[in-house]
Amino acid sequence: MSVLVVGSVALDSVETPFGKAEEALGGSATFFSASASLLCPVQLVGVVGSDFPVSQLEPLASRGVDLAGLERADGESFRWRGRYRHDLNSAETLETRLGVFSHFRPKIPEQFRRAPFVFLGNIDPRLQLDVLRQVERPRLVACDTMNFWIESRRPDLLELLGHVDIITLNDAEARQLTEEYNLVRAARWIMERGPKHVIIKKGEHGAFMFTAQTVFYAPAFPLESVFDPTGAGDAFAGGFIGYLARSGDLSEPNLRRAVVYGSAMGSFAVERFSIERFLEIGPQDIRHRVREFHRLVSFEQDMTA
Amino acid sequence: MSVLVVGSVALDSVETPFGKAEEALGGSATFFSASASLLCPVQLVGVVGSDFPVSQLEPLASRGVDLAGLERADGESFRWRGRYRHDLNSAETLETRLGVFSHFRPKIPEQFRRAPFVFLGNIDPRLQLDVLRQVERPRLVACDTMNFWIESRRPDLLELLGHVDIITLNDAEARQLTEEYNLVRAARWIMERGPKHVIIKKGEHGAFMFTAQTVFYAPAFPLESVFDPTGAGDAFAGGFIGYLARSGDLSEPNLRRAVVYGSAMGSFAVERFSIERFLEIGPQDIRHRVREFHRLVSFEQDMTA
Repeated sequence: MSVLVVGSVALDSVETPFGKAEEALGGSATFFSASASLLCPVQLVGVVGSDFPVSQLEPLASRGVDLAGLERADGESFRWRGRYRHDLNSAETLETRLGVFSHFRPKIPEQFRRAPFVFLGNIDPRLQLDVLRQVERPRLVACDTMNFWIESRRPDLLELLGHVDIITLNDAEARQLTEEYNLVRAARWIMERGPKHVIIKKGEHGAFMFTAQTVFYAPAFPLESVFDPTGAGDAFAGGFIGYLARSGDLSEPNLRRAVVYGSAMGSFAVERFSIERFLEIGPQDIRHRVREFHRLVSFEQDMTA
Repeated sequence: MSVLVVGSVALDSVETPFGKAEEALGGSATFFSASASLLCPVQLVGVVGSDFPVSQLEPLASRGVDLAGLERADGESFRWRGRYRHDLNSAETLETRLGVFSHFRPKIPEQFRRAPFVFLGNIDPRLQLDVLRQVERPRLVACDTMNFWIESRRPDLLELLGHVDIITLNDAEARQLTEEYNLVRAARWIMERGPKHVIIKKGEHGAFMFTAQTVFYAPAFPLESVFDPTGAGDAFAGGFIGYLARSGDLSEPNLRRAVVYGSAMGSFAVERFSIERFLEIGPQDIRHRVREFHRLVSFEQDMTA
């Protein structure tokens, strides 16, 4: 089954202690698509300016990312410039130029409107709601968000919560949204407002998936070299939703596996700049990493204890 | 089999957002013993002042903590006063009065010298080395340390590394000791200097156990209420070494289980002030929590993927 993603397509200039990338492919929809398309067909909706090097998206298109929903508008593309210090934990934004993205009004092409899986990347909750009005009863809707929308669009975001099955957000965002420091309580607060599953991403400290009755936890993979953390969260979402779309199975055991696929894809994202790593890997690499995740957390219970 | 612990026995005054404790039992050897004694016999070596309410240790003694090595010296007991803010992540030390602990010279009683398992709590590495000169070929020696010793006793600490099988330390200490930000590299740096196993504790973000060939990760338990984090690291060590001592099995699968027992005991420690929680729980509670840990991280691999 295919997944529809709506989000940003941007040009990122990133500086880390290990190097620099200038105007590399970035944005939530880009990272999501690069990751998910290793698992299932992807339909992308976004906007770029007239200056966007569209040919750079060709590797994704040839891998099954349908770009029919990528609008080209007059004006400049969305550009982000950021820097990571030695700890790689948080980006320092040096410059954000929204360009054509500031007037983005997602138009879902006719042929995308029956996508069974929908991921609403981190954009204005009003636009996320608008996307939901354009699609026909998806099997599963997931969304992401960020501090800016939690602050400036709280009522819309709360409305959105009533219309999504799953939300992915990071620990700081969960705390900001719910005003609960404790993540167990924060997850419950969110679930009371709609989503049946809450995924709280903790970056290098892994991710939790909460449901009404259960908690699942997947660590981040202990890589020896983390190169550039940009896009890891969207790559996680791409692996998670991509795996669900591929299998079409929304049972708890499969959702757990999907979280591990998300973590695996997040771990690939940080090994290179931009989406580079996703253009190198294949199914074998993903399987291998998922097995490594299994070994990382496996222990046998002592039944005599 | 029994475990010998050498460390501090203190009176802690702690303030958290949820309450206050005045002059409650604390110190690394106390938390370690309260935790480990739920799993195996413990022999404690430490020092208290003439003002110490020794009767408060009675519940531990009656549970198999042999206090024959608890020296009573003239003078004041070690006192620590600290405060945790809302995030509970790091203690703010308000006052430290070392008292008799500043002249502590561990004397291992004759009957403790053949303990098969030895845990060197967080004290001066010179004293940790001195303890090792007093014991006879233990099967396993583990140590802890802290930022103060990494700074002020680096050569001694490096010497100690050559004589221990396992070191437990937190992520900040591992980075400070090795000058490597990446924990995989930090662990390798330490293993090159002696220990075959390095356990890096990340507080609410769980713990890694590194060996030359493998990595194991156990999350911290996602508790809805964390009451007081004091002593969680020593309780972890008590659960870890206590489980190894009880089973006498140093295989990799058993070391993994021991890390989970450590995490379980750390999760109990933070549910009440001081060692209170350890006086309430029994084998059934520990088994139950270990099962919850198993459920928390379990997923089945998709063999068709």
